[in-house]
Amino acid sequence: MTAPDHAHPASPERNRRLLLAERPTAMVGDSTVRLEEGPVPEPAEGQALVRVTYLSIDPTIRTWMNDAPGYLPPIALGEVVRSIGAGEVVRSRTASFGVGELVVGLTGWQDYTLAGDGGMMQILPPGIDPPTALNVFGTTGMTAYFGLLDVGRMTAGDTVVVSGAAGATGSVVGQIAKINGAKVVVGLAGSAEKCAWLVDELGFDAAVNYRTDDIAARLRELCPKGIDLYFDNVGGEILDICLGQLALRGRVVLCGAISTYNSAERAPGPSNYRNLIIQRGRMEGFLILDYLARFGEAQLEMFGWVADGRLKHQEHVIEGLERAPEALNLLFTGGNTGKMIVRL
Amino acid sequence: MTAPDHAHPASPERNRRLLLAERPTAMVGDSTVRLEEGPVPEPAEGQALVRVTYLSIDPTIRTWMNDAPGYLPPIALGEVVRSIGAGEVVRSRTASFGVGELVVGLTGWQDYTLAGDGGMMQILPPGIDPPTALNVFGTTGMTAYFGLLDVGRMTAGDTVVVSGAAGATGSVVGQIAKINGAKVVVGLAGSAEKCAWLVDELGFDAAVNYRTDDIAARLRELCPKGIDLYFDNVGGEILDICLGQLALRGRVVLCGAISTYNSAERAPGPSNYRNLIIQRGRMEGFLILDYLARFGEAQLEMFGWVADGRLKHQEHVIEGLERAPEALNLLFTGGNTGKMIVRL
Repeated sequence: MTAPDHAHPASPERNRRLLLAERPTAMVGDSTVRLEEGPVPEPAEGQALVRVTYLSIDPTIRTWMNDAPGYLPPIALGEVVRSIGAGEVVRSRTASFGVGELVVGLTGWQDYTLAGDGGMMQILPPGIDPPTALNVFGTTGMTAYFGLLDVGRMTAGDTVVVSGAAGATGSVVGQIAKINGAKVVVGLAGSAEKCAWLVDELGFDAAVNYRTDDIAARLRELCPKGIDLYFDNVGGEILDICLGQLALRGRVVLCGAISTYNSAERAPGPSNYRNLIIQRGRMEGFLILDYLARFGEAQLEMFGWVADGRLKHQEHVIEGLERAPEALNLLFTGGNTGKMIVRL
Repeated sequence: MTAPDHAHPASPERNRRLLLAERPTAMVGDSTVRLEEGPVPEPAEGQALVRVTYLSIDPTIRTWMNDAPGYLPPIALGEVVRSIGAGEVVRSRTASFGVGELVVGLTGWQDYTLAGDGGMMQILPPGIDPPTALNVFGTTGMTAYFGLLDVGRMTAGDTVVVSGAAGATGSVVGQIAKINGAKVVVGLAGSAEKCAWLVDELGFDAAVNYRTDDIAARLRELCPKGIDLYFDNVGGEILDICLGQLALRGRVVLCGAISTYNSAERAPGPSNYRNLIIQRGRMEGFLILDYLARFGEAQLEMFGWVADGRLKHQEHVIEGLERAPEALNLLFTGGNTGKMIVRL
């Protein structure tokens, strides 16, 4: 059944789009993106028009702005900034999407996008609101789940350390580790408030303030037998310290390296990688794209954890499409606690 | 049955021992070891006296000379330099070792050592001469076999790159890779002669002279689809280049880092480790000690390869206990082709 052609009453008549105007060499600046207004796109036969309501602001967006090979092509200059987002179907010329349905997918930084058969857009199950869908049940939560359990092969009794722990992925990683019987979970974050949140609200065993604490000394105290699993969101010095404190058969899960994304210089690598030999350790990278077919199993299990209150999630919501660049920068200055989301 | 107490006619009457006199900060120097002569040790009940005939000179000995935590305790000052070696039982007060039997184990840099029940000394099967036992059938060959096939999970069709390829382990790694169906095997070595030996004698598909070639450019030519498996014996810049050229799901097997062992400074780590994320790659270290219980399966298979001529081995033999330090240094200046052995 094709849904009736139907204009949503709340729709503005113009589509605002944030285009990549210039490749940044450090943080995103005033000239990095350009706001362009244009007509709302017309869905062709087989397509639906989606009004974007939320954007998922992820560190990886910054890497897509570089003209460098990566796991996806760079965003072209003049192209709308690539982003995951959520929205509502407001017109439809396809049986795949009905008007009023909520969807998530690669919306980009814009008010409207088109969903088509075979595209990346997926319909949200009833009862899951878009911010939660973009957080624990989206790529963020999936990254935490598969990174920790599949790549890192975490087992009960492990001593787990997570960097970027007050961020979207890190905060979920630590909680999933506790749920699965980690002996000790230590999070690294950049303020006393974040550290308190990790321990008091999310149940981390301890937190280290990487801006004020002696990271290496604190980790040695908290993990006297070494680190069984380090989940790395940041790279840089923290990765090096954790490599140096790996336990026998320790694992480093490489999820991201946000300490390096805004640098045009070649960041140094971790000298302590040689400890992987002595400890028979493993350092492995992954991309959540490879797990798309397995999202269902993780979502089902995590739905249970959220329902019984064991897995908490927090969204850091900023209002307005035009503030998306600012929201992206906040990820790198530590301005967010939990999942960064822009509401349109 | 206890073997008869029996003095071997060729035994000298003194035991020369090379003791660690001073911890080196760079290459082993004149004052690093001290020759000490003493009485030949007396085997107690349950022990046998072994006259050492060959020493296995391995890069890891250099790491044991540092006062730094490692997979084994550092060699203490005043202690005989730890080393694998081979020898002949010349007196015995145990049923475990008969006079005339050939053994391999941790002999140290000395003329005589004692073998006891439950010690590290193992009897050589008949028909295997000590230099071969120390090479392909010893830790060298075992390191190549398990590193490549077990840690690296090499499969037919892989593009394999090996550094230190004209060394003991590297030369065996490349051949085992070819025997197991690697599509392309590229070795890195430090002279035109070594490169020719790898290709002409050992059947490597290509060799790169790391002293004179543009390593990155040559590897891109030879491995246009990227490196599936990089077996790292050297660390440093070559590791970084190979990480940067990893193929999807590429693996880096960390066996050693000889480019760094003689440096007191903290060597930089590999910046390109981040490519492990994009390529979903894995970098893993190992120690052959963990595979002791599985040596038999590898030796059996490799015995077949040696017997039918598919696996060649070469020993670089230097004469005289007193030249052991020189032999060790040659490993780091590229002075050896094949397995470095000192004959006493």
